[in-house]
Amino acid sequence: MRRNETAGSRSESVRQANLSAILRSLHLGGAATRSDLVASSGLTRSAVGALVGELTEMGFVHEERSASDGSPGRPSPIVMPTSDHVTIAMEVLVDSLAVAAISLGGHVLDHRRVDRTRQARPVDDTVRNLVDLTSKMLDELPTTVVVHGVGVAVAGVVRRSDKTVVVAPNIGWNDVPLGDLIRLALPIDLPVVIANDGDFGVLAEVRRGVATGMHDVVYISGEVGVGAGVIADGRPLGGAAGFAGEVGHIPVNPGGLACRCGSSGCWETEVGEEALLRRVGRAAGGGRAVVDDVLASAAAGDADVLAAMDAHGRWLGFGLAGIINTFDPDVVVLGGLFARLFPYVAAAMSSELDRRVFDVVRQQVGVLPSGLGLDGPLLGAAEWAWEQVLADPAGAEPPLPWCARTLIVGEV
Amino acid sequence: MRRNETAGSRSESVRQANLSAILRSLHLGGAATRSDLVASSGLTRSAVGALVGELTEMGFVHEERSASDGSPGRPSPIVMPTSDHVTIAMEVLVDSLAVAAISLGGHVLDHRRVDRTRQARPVDDTVRNLVDLTSKMLDELPTTVVVHGVGVAVAGVVRRSDKTVVVAPNIGWNDVPLGDLIRLALPIDLPVVIANDGDFGVLAEVRRGVATGMHDVVYISGEVGVGAGVIADGRPLGGAAGFAGEVGHIPVNPGGLACRCGSSGCWETEVGEEALLRRVGRAAGGGRAVVDDVLASAAAGDADVLAAMDAHGRWLGFGLAGIINTFDPDVVVLGGLFARLFPYVAAAMSSELDRRVFDVVRQQVGVLPSGLGLDGPLLGAAEWAWEQVLADPAGAEPPLPWCARTLIVGEV
Repeated sequence: MRRNETAGSRSESVRQANLSAILRSLHLGGAATRSDLVASSGLTRSAVGALVGELTEMGFVHEERSASDGSPGRPSPIVMPTSDHVTIAMEVLVDSLAVAAISLGGHVLDHRRVDRTRQARPVDDTVRNLVDLTSKMLDELPTTVVVHGVGVAVAGVVRRSDKTVVVAPNIGWNDVPLGDLIRLALPIDLPVVIANDGDFGVLAEVRRGVATGMHDVVYISGEVGVGAGVIADGRPLGGAAGFAGEVGHIPVNPGGLACRCGSSGCWETEVGEEALLRRVGRAAGGGRAVVDDVLASAAAGDADVLAAMDAHGRWLGFGLAGIINTFDPDVVVLGGLFARLFPYVAAAMSSELDRRVFDVVRQQVGVLPSGLGLDGPLLGAAEWAWEQVLADPAGAEPPLPWCARTLIVGEV
Repeated sequence: MRRNETAGSRSESVRQANLSAILRSLHLGGAATRSDLVASSGLTRSAVGALVGELTEMGFVHEERSASDGSPGRPSPIVMPTSDHVTIAMEVLVDSLAVAAISLGGHVLDHRRVDRTRQARPVDDTVRNLVDLTSKMLDELPTTVVVHGVGVAVAGVVRRSDKTVVVAPNIGWNDVPLGDLIRLALPIDLPVVIANDGDFGVLAEVRRGVATGMHDVVYISGEVGVGAGVIADGRPLGGAAGFAGEVGHIPVNPGGLACRCGSSGCWETEVGEEALLRRVGRAAGGGRAVVDDVLASAAAGDADVLAAMDAHGRWLGFGLAGIINTFDPDVVVLGGLFARLFPYVAAAMSSELDRRVFDVVRQQVGVLPSGLGLDGPLLGAAEWAWEQVLADPAGAEPPLPWCARTLIVGEV
C-alpha cells in the first residue's frame, strides 16, 4: 500500500497548504466573502467551501450571510476570524511591563500595561508579574477563549534559539533564560517565542502598520534604550547570531556620555529617554509619568521644552542619517517614545537628514511615526506566536480553553 | 506536436541547468576529476561525460589525463577551465584607474593600474582611458582570447538598473551613464554591468577571499572615499533603490570636518585617505605615492607616523563598532587602503571595538584585512560579469575573439 500512503500524504500536505493559505489570508486581510477567497486563492468554489468548513469546525472562523449587493444569485457569505482564539503578547521594557490578548486578525481583545520604577529587576519578580497580569486578563475574557502561544518582546539583546536574554544593560540582566522561565510559570503549557522589541516592532509595521507591504524597512524603538528591527529585501535582518539591530550603540559622539553598555557616546546616550529628561532639566529615571508631563509642556508651547526638543531632534537626525545611508530603506518607522515625540522633533530631525543623507536616497525615504504607538512590539510578538497555527491550522493538538486549566498560578 | 515540444523544452532546461552547475563548480572550485564532478553533482558518470564534452566543445574547459593514483581502473581525467575565455574588470577610483582580464576560475591574466591626480575628471577622459588600457591589455593576450562581458567598479553611488553613477562626490560626477558610455566606446559589443566598489568587493571576498562561504559579511573599502558592500544572510544588501552601504557617510563627529558629500563629521572625514595624510602632516591629494611613503615611514618605526596611525585606528574602531552593532556579521573585511594600514592600526582599532561592541558579538566577529588587496573589487566585477555565462553556458551567441574586432578604438 506504499503508493496509496504516498498519494495520501501528498494530498494531506496539499490540504494543509490550502488551509494555511486561507487562514493566513483572513488573518492578514480581514473578513472576506467566499468569492473573494476563490479569487485570491485560485482554488475552486467547492474547495474553498470545504476548507472554510474545516476552519469553521476548528473554531478559527465563522460565516455570516452578507446582504445582497443587488446582483443576481445567492449572496456569497462573509468569512471572518472568530475572537475565540488568541495568542498572548508580553513586553518587558525598562520602566513598564505589558501583556495583551490578540485574536486572529490582529484584534487586541485586552491590553494591560503597568509602570515600574527604574532599577535592576530580579528576574523572578518580572516573570511573576507577567504571569499574574496574563492570568487576570484571561480570567476576564469569555470562557471559550483558547490560547495558542506566547510571544515575548524584550528591550535587550536576545538569542532566539534558546530563548535567552543575553544582555539587557538597562534592566541589569545577563544570560536570563526568560522564555523557559515564562513557559514554566504559566499554568498551561504553551509554546513561547521571544525576541528583541525591535524585531517584533518591525514585523508589526510590515504586517499591520505604516510599512505594510514594503520590503526595506527600519523600525526604531526609542524608550530608555534604543534598538532597531530591520527588514531587508523582505526578510528580517538577523546577523550571524541574531544580534543585529543594536543601533542604539552606534557611537556618534567622541566626547559623549558613558552608556550603560560600557561604551560612551552611543546614540542612545543622546536620544534615549534619559537624554530627553536631561535636556529638559528633569531627573533621570522619572518614567512615563514624567515623560507625559514633558509632552504636555511641549503641547502647551513651553519655549524651554521646545528648544530641548529641537536639540533632541537634531541628535535623532544625526544618528538616523547614518542608518539611512547604510540601509537605503523605503521607510524608517519611529516607535515607542520616538513616535510620541515626533511632532516636536520632526523639523529639526528633517533638516539634519536633508543635510546628511545622499539626495537620491533622501528623496525617496519616508520617516514616519508608528501608527501602532506603544503597542507595535506587542502586535509583532503576537504575529510571531501565531505563525505555528497559520502554517498548519489542523496540525497542532487543539489546546484546552484557558478556563479549563487545572493549575493555579503559584509561586514562581 | 505540442506535447513533444514541451517535453523537448523541459529536457533543454534540464541540460542548461546541468551545464551551468558543472561550469559554476569548476569556476568556483577549480580543477576537478570527472569522478569529483559525479560526486558533487549527483549526476551519472555518463551524463557528466556528455556535459564535459559539450563544455569542451564550447572551449570553456579542457581535460588532462591524471597520473594514476595506484588504484585499479582507468584514472579519471582532470577537468579544468581554459584561460581562453575572459571577462574584463574595470575600476574607477578617485586617484587611479585599473583594468584586468580575468579567466574562468578567477585567474587574473593581466592587470593594469594607472595613477591619476586628484581633480574633477571629465567623464569622456575616463572612458577613453579605460578603453585604451583595455585594448592594449587584450592586444597582448593570445589571439584566441574571447571576451564575454565587462564589470565596472566605481567609487560612488551607482544605480545598477540603468548603469548610472548617480553621485561620486570625490570624483565630481553626477548622473553619469557610465555603463552605456563604456559599452559604446568599446570596439566590440559586450554586456556591461556596473556597481559600487563595495558591492563588488564583498562578492569577491565571499567567493575568493577571507569570507569564502560565510553568510553575514561586511566589506569596507577605504580609499579617498569609504564605502561598504554587505552580504546579509547570504544575499547582497541592496536597499530600496540599490544605494545601501554608504557607511562612509555615517555621521560620527558632531564637531567634525566638512565632507565632500555636503554633510560634515562623516566617518570618511576621519578615516579616508585625506584624514590619514592630515594626521601625518602631508598635503591632501598626494595619491598613492605619498601613501606608499607614509607606509614606509610606519614600517621604519617613525614615532610620529605610528602615533598618527594609532589615532587613525581609534577612529576606524569608533565607526566600525557602530557597523558591527548594527549588522552582527561573521566577519568584517577591510579592503583597499584599510588593508594596507591594517598592521599599524589594528591594536588601537581593536581596543575601541573591545570597549564599544557588545561582548557577545565581539567574541565571534572577525575583523580581517582583505587578502585580495587592491584587486578585490576587480575580482568581484569579473565575477558579476561571468554570471550570465555561468547561468547559461550554451545560451549566449558565442562572441568573436577579441582579435577579430573590426573597429578601431577612436574618439569617444
